[in-house]
Amino acid sequence: MDRIPILKMGPFLLVTIQVDLYDRLALNLENDLITMVSKTEAKGVLIDISAVSIVDSFMGRILGNIASMSRIMDAETVVVGMQPAVAITLVELGLTLQGVHTALNVEKGMELLQNKIGLNLLNQEEYQEPADDTDL
Amino acid sequence: MDRIPILKMGPFLLVTIQVDLYDRLALNLENDLITMVSKTEAKGVLIDISAVSIVDSFMGRILGNIASMSRIMDAETVVVGMQPAVAITLVELGLTLQGVHTALNVEKGMELLQNKIGLNLLNQEEYQEPADDTDL
Repeated sequence: MDRIPILKMGPFLLVTIQVDLYDRLALNLENDLITMVSKTEAKGVLIDISAVSIVDSFMGRILGNIASMSRIMDAETVVVGMQPAVAITLVELGLTLQGVHTALNVEKGMELLQNKIGLNLLNQEEYQEPADDTDL
Repeated sequence: MDRIPILKMGPFLLVTIQVDLYDRLALNLENDLITMVSKTEAKGVLIDISAVSIVDSFMGRILGNIASMSRIMDAETVVVGMQPAVAITLVELGLTLQGVHTALNVEKGMELLQNKIGLNLLNQEEYQEPADDTDL
């Protein structure tokens, strides 16, 4: 396998990382993701790493890169599903994933993105004009 | 890796198959999926196989099994993102994926599921009573 599938879900893109990101795979993912953001005009990128049990500085840098690239393309990035052990390792490595938002799971990540882009697809309520009380 | 992550998205579960399903992985996936359906009371299972380029009778059987098990647990299964070459191979192998719904991509698969369970989360419109024109 040399490509990680990118799923389009409404205004967001979803990537599930299930394997170790070696050089070529990581580069392909960066390229594919930016191409997809541009093609689909996605407003957010969700990266699920719940299957990742080992994280190193390379992986940390890739996540940071994706977030920076997406931001330039006007899309926010949220990393979701991080295992507790991975969070511990990241901090011990001194990697704080700057510029990357995180959430506990995909649903919470999607909520975060929806709030960020001021869009709520799940509970779309019509905007109501405030009542104009001039007779006070 | 001996587990494929299962993502909960509203009333549905999403699984992205990115690697070849060998025996142990397939059994784990079946178990995990059924446990998740029961735990989260999911009404639908989406299986994305856009990264799968080779499919054999084993894989076909696994997909069929998952669909049958889910149906017993009151959840519909939709396989999405099948590559054209995979569809050709499946038919040539004589596997018609009976009992498995298919859709072109995750979005269309989700629409299909929403229609199936009579739920539309993305475009939730209020039900309007038909006008009662008794004065005709």
